[in-house]
Amino acid sequence: MVAEPREIRDGTVTTPRGFLAGATYAGLKTYGVDKLDLGILFSERPATAAGVFSTNHIVSPSVTLSKRHIASGYARAIVANSGCANCCVGPQGLKDAQEVVAIASRKLGVAAEEILVCSTGLIGVELPMALLRQAIPKVQLSADGGHALARAIMTTDSRPKEAGVSFTIDGVEASIGGIAKGAGMIHPNMATMLCFMTTDLAVEPGFLQRALREAADASFNMVSVDGDSSTNDSLLLLANGTAGNKEVREGTPQGDAFRQALEAVCVTLAQAIAYEGEGATKGLEVVVEGARTLEDARCIARSVASSSLVKTALHGNDPNWGRIMMALGKTKAYVEEGKVALYINDVCILEEGRPIPFLRDAVVKIMSETRVSFRIQLNLGDSSARAWGCDLSEEYVTFNSAYTT
Amino acid sequence: MVAEPREIRDGTVTTPRGFLAGATYAGLKTYGVDKLDLGILFSERPATAAGVFSTNHIVSPSVTLSKRHIASGYARAIVANSGCANCCVGPQGLKDAQEVVAIASRKLGVAAEEILVCSTGLIGVELPMALLRQAIPKVQLSADGGHALARAIMTTDSRPKEAGVSFTIDGVEASIGGIAKGAGMIHPNMATMLCFMTTDLAVEPGFLQRALREAADASFNMVSVDGDSSTNDSLLLLANGTAGNKEVREGTPQGDAFRQALEAVCVTLAQAIAYEGEGATKGLEVVVEGARTLEDARCIARSVASSSLVKTALHGNDPNWGRIMMALGKTKAYVEEGKVALYINDVCILEEGRPIPFLRDAVVKIMSETRVSFRIQLNLGDSSARAWGCDLSEEYVTFNSAYTT
Repeated sequence: MVAEPREIRDGTVTTPRGFLAGATYAGLKTYGVDKLDLGILFSERPATAAGVFSTNHIVSPSVTLSKRHIASGYARAIVANSGCANCCVGPQGLKDAQEVVAIASRKLGVAAEEILVCSTGLIGVELPMALLRQAIPKVQLSADGGHALARAIMTTDSRPKEAGVSFTIDGVEASIGGIAKGAGMIHPNMATMLCFMTTDLAVEPGFLQRALREAADASFNMVSVDGDSSTNDSLLLLANGTAGNKEVREGTPQGDAFRQALEAVCVTLAQAIAYEGEGATKGLEVVVEGARTLEDARCIARSVASSSLVKTALHGNDPNWGRIMMALGKTKAYVEEGKVALYINDVCILEEGRPIPFLRDAVVKIMSETRVSFRIQLNLGDSSARAWGCDLSEEYVTFNSAYTT
Repeated sequence: MVAEPREIRDGTVTTPRGFLAGATYAGLKTYGVDKLDLGILFSERPATAAGVFSTNHIVSPSVTLSKRHIASGYARAIVANSGCANCCVGPQGLKDAQEVVAIASRKLGVAAEEILVCSTGLIGVELPMALLRQAIPKVQLSADGGHALARAIMTTDSRPKEAGVSFTIDGVEASIGGIAKGAGMIHPNMATMLCFMTTDLAVEPGFLQRALREAADASFNMVSVDGDSSTNDSLLLLANGTAGNKEVREGTPQGDAFRQALEAVCVTLAQAIAYEGEGATKGLEVVVEGARTLEDARCIARSVASSSLVKTALHGNDPNWGRIMMALGKTKAYVEEGKVALYINDVCILEEGRPIPFLRDAVVKIMSETRVSFRIQLNLGDSSARAWGCDLSEEYVTFNSAYTT
């Protein structure tokens, strides 16, 4: 017995039962709209944990330590700071991450190995441990602390990103909540994307990890340029079983419902990251339909959503569909020019690979909205995918030209 | 008996003996600094021909026809136009390309199958054949017509790109000349890179093709984002044997000298494309040393030179080396953080993966020059590579936001 997930207004990482969170200002962050820069997420009972991490060869020791701790499949807490990435600082980085965890361990009364740690901010600067030793014990945890935590992990984000859904499984009311940070589409600024998610369901550990990986592939990995992965990217999910359900397993209706709800939250947060990219004035959804394989569909959707020429044309409200054709053809994915149809929102501007007369002024008007959709019908098969991005504006350049200076 | 290649001042595609060229204004181009938009390169005798073409799934029928004609390994002429890409126009595109070749065939008195054709400009617009029928017969060929041809293939290029070298093989004076167009580093505008090269040497056909492919990999493929390939990219090389040498073969000192000279011309033209990218205010050379393999070195060099965050930091004269670390670590190429050293021009700013104190103002000054070099020493092996790019400026965005409108 399952039901469709329902969006929860103001849903966040403390929406699922049995999770507490809180944040404080440690003094690490000198920029951003909010001064909170240190926070903790805590599960009142041991939780099954899954994680997806940066594939960059250069990673923060915070990531290294979290990977080590999550290998057990369980976790109780996440400590996160913004303002400093704890990356490229030599052996001190791992020592500092371990000390952060040790301090949190004493505060929370759980083992250090049950704690995950995330850092985001400038690379090459050591964690100011004197500040963190003072601040970590001061974090106040509460059942509605998710909102504060969402603000504490922000760097150049213009607003916090939070989402939640509820659904019923076997008569048990359950929910999934999440928060994220990340402010760019092409190479998120300082290249960091963090997302913490929670659920009060009990979920079989192996399935939790596979479901998270799949949801990431359909969401966060569709707002990123191919191959781009930061030094600190971390997506973490804790499932603490407070709902009292029978453990959710793969290949069951309950498992499918969980997957669907998890993907819904991930897509909402991924869209928020893409649409509020640095300097963005509008959001872009690229829908690819009729591809031969899912991999082809995703590859093309990402290519179009991340093309600088497509993004600048979008910025100028310019229906320059030649650039879309270039971007969709340049990947390894199979395409037949003579079969391609292209829609801007629902206006068809290309059919069978050739332009059809369209009312230029109307399309320019459509492209000047804050949400624009490019739909590409390949007419080759049954696979489809969505990717999200934003326009590339002068402000993006101005902002990123003077970041450390 | 071979000697080092020497740069030829004002070298161009008609510098090698036995080549004629010319250009005219057909009325296709309404923008750009020069009104020439149609040109022809002609070899007075049959020439061995090699080509490297776009790998995009969507290609111009001009590319399709040129690939068909060059399959014989021989060619006499290239007809090129700017202002119109002859791409995404349905079956008419191939008919038009064939008619262009047929008209040139009548004018030049050589078989249509000996003629290659290139188009660059807007996608989705049919070639204005009425104009071309008038103009092709009017092109005046001359022994110093290479400069005019270089101007005729320009679109948004700020200046023509030409180069030439001379060298001596077995007592025979020979030369290689080339011209190129292409004005962007990330996705060249309208995504087209054209390059025509000539030599008066006789070169064994299979070797000519392999040498051209290798030179392209070390030059033009190092100014392009991974996987990016336009609908019209074409690199063509004609070797007509006018020098009277014994045919140059692979695995000989003569073959090595030819390779070296060919790569020198390709690198000069590739640098010109990268450094004069749209909106560029300065050029960037990325040197990667000490990589495990050549493939690793190239992959990392390209990743750094094409990163939007690196390019915007360069624009702002900002020694934000954390972004360089992110970009060099994100590829599949093997990297060990603790071994990396990084130099901006010759100033070391990072050693063993950790920042070393550097005079910030001095480095900011260095980065404000019109040519900046990032040198990355990986300390893992003996392979090295160079890639070229430019800064990402507000002007790039402004320019590309209003291209067709």
